[in-house]
Amino acid sequence: MSNRIGRRTLVFSKGPRITSRYTLVGPREGRGPHALDFHEIMGDDTLGQKTAEKTERLMLEIAIAKTLEQHGTEVHDLQFLIAGDLLNQITTSNLAASTHAVPFIGIYGACSTFAEALGLAAVLLQGDFADQVMVGTASHYQTAERQFRYPIELNVQHLATNQVTVTGAAAAILSFADRGPHLTHATFGQVVDMGLKDPQDMGSAMAPAAFQTIKDHLADTGRSLEDYDIVFTGDLGKQGSKMLRVLLERENYTGLERLQDGGSRIFGPGQAVGAGGSGAACIAVMTLGYILNCLESAKAKRVLVVATGALLSALTVLQGESIPCIAHAVVLEQ
Amino acid sequence: MSNRIGRRTLVFSKGPRITSRYTLVGPREGRGPHALDFHEIMGDDTLGQKTAEKTERLMLEIAIAKTLEQHGTEVHDLQFLIAGDLLNQITTSNLAASTHAVPFIGIYGACSTFAEALGLAAVLLQGDFADQVMVGTASHYQTAERQFRYPIELNVQHLATNQVTVTGAAAAILSFADRGPHLTHATFGQVVDMGLKDPQDMGSAMAPAAFQTIKDHLADTGRSLEDYDIVFTGDLGKQGSKMLRVLLERENYTGLERLQDGGSRIFGPGQAVGAGGSGAACIAVMTLGYILNCLESAKAKRVLVVATGALLSALTVLQGESIPCIAHAVVLEQ
Repeated sequence: MSNRIGRRTLVFSKGPRITSRYTLVGPREGRGPHALDFHEIMGDDTLGQKTAEKTERLMLEIAIAKTLEQHGTEVHDLQFLIAGDLLNQITTSNLAASTHAVPFIGIYGACSTFAEALGLAAVLLQGDFADQVMVGTASHYQTAERQFRYPIELNVQHLATNQVTVTGAAAAILSFADRGPHLTHATFGQVVDMGLKDPQDMGSAMAPAAFQTIKDHLADTGRSLEDYDIVFTGDLGKQGSKMLRVLLERENYTGLERLQDGGSRIFGPGQAVGAGGSGAACIAVMTLGYILNCLESAKAKRVLVVATGALLSALTVLQGESIPCIAHAVVLEQ
Repeated sequence: MSNRIGRRTLVFSKGPRITSRYTLVGPREGRGPHALDFHEIMGDDTLGQKTAEKTERLMLEIAIAKTLEQHGTEVHDLQFLIAGDLLNQITTSNLAASTHAVPFIGIYGACSTFAEALGLAAVLLQGDFADQVMVGTASHYQTAERQFRYPIELNVQHLATNQVTVTGAAAAILSFADRGPHLTHATFGQVVDMGLKDPQDMGSAMAPAAFQTIKDHLADTGRSLEDYDIVFTGDLGKQGSKMLRVLLERENYTGLERLQDGGSRIFGPGQAVGAGGSGAACIAVMTLGYILNCLESAKAKRVLVVATGALLSALTVLQGESIPCIAHAVVLEQ
């Protein structure tokens, strides 16, 4: 028996579920329209730490600790912790993992990291390698600005196509316990590089990757967009979402009203955030917050989460490389 | 049926094998004692590229292309490419992956990356998620020096405990084809942080992680070091290897004569390389070159490969963080 359908989609017939979750966001995210979907809103964006990197690490540690607590699970009862983040050498995840005696799988997928983690966790559960797996990620506006762009003290003006890195952290436990939505499928994406080079417009660069993965997923499963109550991309932002629609329309896909984008939704219209949110935490907090709330309250029964990542570095941009992008998809079902 | 024994060790009973491989090293590595174990030695360390980053990317692309060629496999017949490297946002792997239309799983484990990739590939094969999986990694002396230390033009003096990043790339295909060594077990490690902070001596920082994973692996499998013809660590270097021996002796492990270290072996005594080699490529080219040659020529029948990684970044060092380390182990058997 193969656990794969079509060319690229993995099937998790044993029914792994998201059985515990925790989301934590910064004050700006807490002023957005989804404030009530998150478990905790930070009073300030430092948590009393001396550097933003230490704050980001603490945020991930809090998300991990609270997820364990809500699950009634000790860390040594987990078989794996899978985590990644945006920082060089994923140091947020490495440092947070260093306080837990559990096998650690470090991953990097930029803003697609969380879906990559969910997919791998389901693989380990379906494949009888684990009973309980923790996944986590975090990002912080200030660490990302410092690393990828300019020191925030410079107060550089942002363009309308710029996205704002979400300050947030998220963690979840996947297991076979009798609660929470099922993770039924995963479609890991290929790297797509359309030659775009503008780091001020990553939404446009990522849209073709989202398109490719959605197309592959629907072909593999024989489903249409209408088979999903929500097709939740993240984080294309406003610019990238427009482009994804154009790409889907051009190939005559219907059901485009099912599309929603995490990056476009996390902040409200009154917030000066360019094209919307991004960062590894964005799709993570929106999925574990908003989407899981939709599934729990039966506002949605089946959701396709398509997490996109722009796989650039500050150095590759300066060296004139184009921006390779990726999108990983997972199906969550009530 | 569980595919796990003990607390942490995964078992691959279906017999996934390394069925194709390619190793490529720089001129300095080609002057070392293992020159004949590698498939290709570069004539210079640029391959005609303008930057060392472009060279590193090209090296990985060559390793991938040659591995496919030797396997008689087209890239679209693979189900996954798993790769990672040392550079910020693993851009070498991302850019190399962008030329291949295959689902990509980006990972980060510093110099332990290759064992992490091998373990995940075996998970995907054993779990019926894939029939053929490619793994790859690369590192380059100049890109690592520039990113983690000083521009090489500064000609900073190295300490005896410093390790030299290996210039090299390696790729392999894992499948169920009827050739090559079996990958029978994997033990993913936890992050171990003993509070060491000296980035000039990463061997000492990594030794406790190697010790922890070896201990866990032997406890899970009920084996001793003597059950392996070679216990191949990488890359502890001379300093870290000494420390691992002390840790094992202190807990009365026997069979320490089975220990060999990739970082200590890749360069010869006449080469000015401090404590030895390191870098994501080191354990990768030594495993796919030297170790697989030992298995093929029956000089060894069963080898435990324990790949270690120091999970620091240039920023965490400056911010006074200690160095979290990890070690992932895989068993290769004739």
